[in-house]
Amino acid sequence: MSETCTYYAAEEPNGGPEGKGRRPPGAEGRKWLERMRRTFEEPTSSVAAQVLATVSILFVIVSMVVLCASTLPEWRAPENRSVEEQSRYTAESVREPSGIIEAICIGWFTAECIVRFIVSKNKCEFVRRPLNIIDLLAITPYYISVLMTVFTGENSQLQRAGVTLRVLRMMRIFWVIKLARHFIGLQTLGLTLKRCYREMVMLLVFICVAMAIFSALSQLLENGLDLGTKNKDYASIPAACWWVIISMTTVGYGDMCPITVPGRILGGICVVSGIVLLALPITFIYHSFVQCYHELKFRSARYSRSLSAEFLN
Amino acid sequence: MSETCTYYAAEEPNGGPEGKGRRPPGAEGRKWLERMRRTFEEPTSSVAAQVLATVSILFVIVSMVVLCASTLPEWRAPENRSVEEQSRYTAESVREPSGIIEAICIGWFTAECIVRFIVSKNKCEFVRRPLNIIDLLAITPYYISVLMTVFTGENSQLQRAGVTLRVLRMMRIFWVIKLARHFIGLQTLGLTLKRCYREMVMLLVFICVAMAIFSALSQLLENGLDLGTKNKDYASIPAACWWVIISMTTVGYGDMCPITVPGRILGGICVVSGIVLLALPITFIYHSFVQCYHELKFRSARYSRSLSAEFLN
Amino acid sequence: MSETCTYYAAEEPNGGPEGKGRRPPGAEGRKWLERMRRTFEEPTSSVAAQVLATVSILFVIVSMVVLCASTLPEWRAPENRSVEEQSRYTAESVREPSGIIEAICIGWFTAECIVRFIVSKNKCEFVRRPLNIIDLLAITPYYISVLMTVFTGENSQLQRAGVTLRVLRMMRIFWVIKLARHFIGLQTLGLTLKRCYREMVMLLVFICVAMAIFSALSQLLENGLDLGTKNKDYASIPAACWWVIISMTTVGYGDMCPITVPGRILGGICVVSGIVLLALPITFIYHSFVQCYHELKFRSARYSRSLSAEFLN
Amino acid sequence: MSETCTYYAAEEPNGGPEGKGRRPPGAEGRKWLERMRRTFEEPTSSVAAQVLATVSILFVIVSMVVLCASTLPEWRAPENRSVEEQSRYTAESVREPSGIIEAICIGWFTAECIVRFIVSKNKCEFVRRPLNIIDLLAITPYYISVLMTVFTGENSQLQRAGVTLRVLRMMRIFWVIKLARHFIGLQTLGLTLKRCYREMVMLLVFICVAMAIFSALSQLLENGLDLGTKNKDYASIPAACWWVIISMTTVGYGDMCPITVPGRILGGICVVSGIVLLALPITFIYHSFVQCYHELKFRSARYSRSLSAEFLN
Repeated sequence: MSETCTYYAAEEPNGGPEGKGRRPPGAEGRKWLERMRRTFEEPTSSVAAQVLATVSILFVIVSMVVLCASTLPEWRAPENRSVEEQSRYTAESVREPSGIIEAICIGWFTAECIVRFIVSKNKCEFVRRPLNIIDLLAITPYYISVLMTVFTGENSQLQRAGVTLRVLRMMRIFWVIKLARHFIGLQTLGLTLKRCYREMVMLLVFICVAMAIFSALSQLLENGLDLGTKNKDYASIPAACWWVIISMTTVGYGDMCPITVPGRILGGICVVSGIVLLALPITFIYHSFVQCYHELKFRSARYSRSLSAEFLN
Repeated sequence: MSETCTYYAAEEPNGGPEGKGRRPPGAEGRKWLERMRRTFEEPTSSVAAQVLATVSILFVIVSMVVLCASTLPEWRAPENRSVEEQSRYTAESVREPSGIIEAICIGWFTAECIVRFIVSKNKCEFVRRPLNIIDLLAITPYYISVLMTVFTGENSQLQRAGVTLRVLRMMRIFWVIKLARHFIGLQTLGLTLKRCYREMVMLLVFICVAMAIFSALSQLLENGLDLGTKNKDYASIPAACWWVIISMTTVGYGDMCPITVPGRILGGICVVSGIVLLALPITFIYHSFVQCYHELKFRSARYSRSLSAEFLN
Repeated sequence: MSETCTYYAAEEPNGGPEGKGRRPPGAEGRKWLERMRRTFEEPTSSVAAQVLATVSILFVIVSMVVLCASTLPEWRAPENRSVEEQSRYTAESVREPSGIIEAICIGWFTAECIVRFIVSKNKCEFVRRPLNIIDLLAITPYYISVLMTVFTGENSQLQRAGVTLRVLRMMRIFWVIKLARHFIGLQTLGLTLKRCYREMVMLLVFICVAMAIFSALSQLLENGLDLGTKNKDYASIPAACWWVIISMTTVGYGDMCPITVPGRILGGICVVSGIVLLALPITFIYHSFVQCYHELKFRSARYSRSLSAEFLN
Repeated sequence: MSETCTYYAAEEPNGGPEGKGRRPPGAEGRKWLERMRRTFEEPTSSVAAQVLATVSILFVIVSMVVLCASTLPEWRAPENRSVEEQSRYTAESVREPSGIIEAICIGWFTAECIVRFIVSKNKCEFVRRPLNIIDLLAITPYYISVLMTVFTGENSQLQRAGVTLRVLRMMRIFWVIKLARHFIGLQTLGLTLKRCYREMVMLLVFICVAMAIFSALSQLLENGLDLGTKNKDYASIPAACWWVIISMTTVGYGDMCPITVPGRILGGICVVSGIVLLALPITFIYHSFVQCYHELKFRSARYSRSLSAEFLN
């Protein structure tokens, strides 16, 4: 963000209008565009910006609540209709209460996204920003699902299309990532994941290697040796993998348990090595997270200061 | 606490009586009031203060034990009476052994609270202290419940009032927070929570975002796709939320488990990311806790030293 | 240990025999006593000392294995005798294979303990050492149980005595703490626990306070409110305490689970605050443990060096 | 690795061919051998080396997938044949799809191992390297199982040989450790385990001592005292050991649970002390891991730099 700022400060003397959108006729228009941009991009810059941010967060929360509530049995009761009604139901879903709320939310998100694009100074840079890509990815599935309903029509309710629609519908959950724009914690998390790419791979390799070894051994000891008792839960290595990951992370649902003595000894080793193995790469991620947090906090503080200095002049 | 001290030292030369309670006629009375205040507020100042603190802790423990014991089936046996007796029972509960002990405890707490208020130097500051607010909040529900029983009378045993009474009765558990006055650990915890407000919000946001994404996806994979098996446990997103929080924190009760292969893969990812996500903001809380502990220990040590220096003079 | 050394070095010039045991006639005898003492107290001082330490460890392991094996159903098969035989069995238990091994082990431990006492330089200091107190506490119950069997005789097999005997018998498990003499890790643990007394109390207070609050609230929400469903598992606060401790530590056996919505929300809060609460005092214990370990390692290294320097002269 | 390099640099001026393999006639041949060696030993040295490393990783992954898939019920369907067919099946297993893929994999691994041995400069040093020992141990069981099938013949399908064959077959899972050659994380892990030998022993001693004490006490409290209820799950100390390790590591499958009040109090103590005990030695392993990682990364970076410097000259 501070880089954008610097870039803009350097360009302003030229007075060159760099937007492809509505070109403001003079300094007044440019000033208005700049204020508009700030209102949308910097939640702490003004009261209007804070209101906008709050409204945005509220819309995200409302859409999440509606999505959650729409899966409750009490809400889905109207679904228990005949097949013919079912086919009509999907097409009508946009006209139901939850559908209307969703349409309003998506409308707001789309509008916000478009305004943000119009008022942005550098269109190329805007498109490449991770938060904007997330916005686009979060919005698109809704329109695809609407288009699919329109094109497949009312009576072509194939099972295939139903699954796709349900998947697309559930993609709305990713609207929640839009909150990253307003919470420094989520931004820190994103930055940490980007920087700790190597450590994440290390964690993945550790888990995979441990899972391969322990699942094969547990399958052998519990089921493969076939001495007396045979534990049906460990019928195959992929099935044993589930037990290994649940044990190594110390979750332990208890749906699968070793019952033979060698299997239990292996289970103990698996759990202890899981605690050690998982924690080792995470220490790196911690350190990186702490550093990222301080960087982002410092940057944000400096930015706010520079802003208030600007307002004072 | 040390600030209160400094404030008092500055005011003493004026000799102005600042309490609205019994005004001591001269220096002797003021000295007595000061000694009284110390006895109640500073558990390490004298033998009497230590005795008082111990009695206070004992009263808290006794009231907790009585509250716990009163829920045991052996104690509640007299409850299995007819409805008429039941209505009488609630009114009489104050006259039963557990009721008597509770009345004694609440009497002690109220007396302690009032004396503390009377001997305090600055009434306004006293009311704003967190520990005193907790005291008030812990005591009030008892009197409300007594008043409710008196006003509703013997025969108006409505179901509504019963629930409210039970809730008010259980509020007595917060008497346990009164221990914070006597344990530096609990004070450190309180100070840490106050200072780590931002990190607590971060932790909450992380949990909520992860819960939204994973619960929606798991509901989709286990129940929504409807390919072959349908896991009834994941009927709705709120139901899946319970599974997500129990898995992310590695508790794993096992009352809900994914059974499909994609659901189990998602479960593994959910657990591992839960370990990483939860631990990240907690590291900040740790650092803050360590710092708060050293600060409080240092302040307490300095305070004790200044006290003993005062006694030696 | 190094302090003992220094103390001895200061006393040696006086040549005063300070033991109440066999007094050696001259320098030769004293030298022999000193070598004997070293062999028993310092496992790294000579080959004989190492052999002695290994034998001691082996005896501990053997006695542990025998104790474990003696509870296996295959070993206890002879127990399924009539009551008369049962009474005889207990008396004869010393003459059975496992009983003989135990007698040999206890004989060795007693002999080791006595020799160590005889060759020690300062009897008072010897008795006060924690490791020697543990030795005594580990050995005593065996003799008490033997005495009890002798005094109660063959036919007075009261249920009461049986329980006491079984408890005394199981006390043999504490022989395993004798390993602390040979493993620096266990010594570090002991030293850490001694130094972190305050932090252990803090941990205990945290757990108790959280347990009181969460168990009372969960009992209220799951069982007390009595709105519709009543979860029998949460019938009383003590029962709910078990759920709270198992949830806060993220164990989650799954024998008790909240089923109501408010109970599950409380469960989530309980688990997350448990993770935070438990980890906070443990960080202090970690730091202390690391410090204790380095101290003990440094002391042991210096001691070995001073020993080898002594041997070279 | 850098030591090998230094050693070689010192020896090169002598130009002495130190391999027992094909001796290159002149400088050209030696250069080719050196390039070959680099291609196999240093994955970052050239494009060919990177391709070779990728192929190697792919072969490991393919063989793992085949091993996992071969245990799936769908793949094992042909096993449901009569006993006579069964006997033939084992002998034919090499000719089946999964058998062919395994044969190709093992062929590649063997070839890679042999070429690596031939092009190595110092045969003695090569044989002593841990990664090469792992290679050998991973490959050998396959040939033993093939030999066993050949020697025992088609009709000697004894139960004994079947178990041995199944164990040998599952040893293929250790091919996954070959990945250590290509991932710095796994090398770091290996180095950490080698350096933290003492801390691993400490962790083991802690677990064993805690397991002995808690399993004996829980067995006594849940089953041994025999007051009223008797928990069959805690029939013997070894059975209780499983509960202790699963509780101390906070896994908590829930297949065994204490049901008596003293047993549950002991369970709570066991879990809390397990969290403290297990975490203490792991902190040392963390610190060592971080150090090892930085060392290996630094060494690898220096090595790459020295390589690129060599190429530039």
